[in-house]
Amino acid sequence: MQKIAGKILRTLGYAFQDESLLTRALTHRSVGARHNERLEFLGDALLGMVVAEYLFSQFPDADEGQLTRTRATLVNRESLAEVARGLDLGDLIRLGEGELKSGGWRRDSILANAVEALLGAIYLDGGMDACRNTVLRLLESRLTSIDPDSTRKDAKTALQEFLQSRRRSLPEYKTMDISGPSHQQVFTVSCQVDSLPEPVVANGPTRRKAEQAAARATLQLLNPR
Amino acid sequence: MQKIAGKILRTLGYAFQDESLLTRALTHRSVGARHNERLEFLGDALLGMVVAEYLFSQFPDADEGQLTRTRATLVNRESLAEVARGLDLGDLIRLGEGELKSGGWRRDSILANAVEALLGAIYLDGGMDACRNTVLRLLESRLTSIDPDSTRKDAKTALQEFLQSRRRSLPEYKTMDISGPSHQQVFTVSCQVDSLPEPVVANGPTRRKAEQAAARATLQLLNPR
Repeated sequence: MQKIAGKILRTLGYAFQDESLLTRALTHRSVGARHNERLEFLGDALLGMVVAEYLFSQFPDADEGQLTRTRATLVNRESLAEVARGLDLGDLIRLGEGELKSGGWRRDSILANAVEALLGAIYLDGGMDACRNTVLRLLESRLTSIDPDSTRKDAKTALQEFLQSRRRSLPEYKTMDISGPSHQQVFTVSCQVDSLPEPVVANGPTRRKAEQAAARATLQLLNPR
Repeated sequence: MQKIAGKILRTLGYAFQDESLLTRALTHRSVGARHNERLEFLGDALLGMVVAEYLFSQFPDADEGQLTRTRATLVNRESLAEVARGLDLGDLIRLGEGELKSGGWRRDSILANAVEALLGAIYLDGGMDACRNTVLRLLESRLTSIDPDSTRKDAKTALQEFLQSRRRSLPEYKTMDISGPSHQQVFTVSCQVDSLPEPVVANGPTRRKAEQAAARATLQLLNPR
């Protein structure tokens, strides 16, 4: 463990007083009962708060929507998994047998969760300032390059805001079909709004992407500009 | 404003040093440019963090799912709107003409957002401890009566998690029939999973309840325990 603590000190710049917290943060649930999921819950909330505070103070002219979307680009699973790769965290995470072989989505999610668990552990070990400093250091390169003005609304958000501003009821999405082999599924989704007679149907490789496509097409019908 | 500050002091137990922050927290966007939405963004993150920290420390045996669900019951719009009503916050919020007449959902959302904005303002004015104390005081009666063990997963969530943990594809719900008069409809819904030869069919008074019933029955077939 001391070797790992040394590595974390070099990469995160944080020295744990209680190394059992560090061990726990790096232990996936596949290993046994003393895993990192509770720490991940705590770290996720801390990360959201620290980034919110940073964006709030750094971008006094950004509105709530821009702040929310900017934060979402910083703290999503893919972004945190990249952070974890930058730290070579993958080598330090303790995984059970079954998980060792898994790749792809699982892998990203395990890495991202470990980053959040580490932040929770640092908070418990060293307090808010230590946690805040670690977040800002981990995200430093991303934080310096963000521009809230450039965050575009995704189509579902844009459609929802369009309808709300006109006091119409919200769209209803339905999954109509899921086809294809499990690694290459195609989702068919419909988007129904009160003011159109028929639902708009669209496809995508994930439910979310299919819904975004359906929302985009619906918005275009409602507001062709 | 001083009258409002006095009222907030009595109900929240917090005395603002910078009363312009308080004014801002209580100003809805319908009033003009200096409204409370940025403070709401900040306060939402703070609230999530403080409640996460509280639950983490108070319930050492609760797992991440229980913590997440318990927090969701504490910080949702309805719950925060109730908190706002307990504080008579509605009378203190500055609304534009158009918003004065609106009720229902809008109203709940305006109230809940003002609570979050107040928490953001208190954080900026008095720091983390002041914010934490306010959150814990506002939610006190709720926090003392919660029991993470009692938060049950709804059946659709449980079925989805069961399938995902086994890397199977997600269930597909279809509405097969809607019958009965409009105030007393019966929804018939099917739930199809790859590993069962036939979809499971169930009824309910709403689509959601029918889907929950179908999910529950499907889960029982897959995992009779």
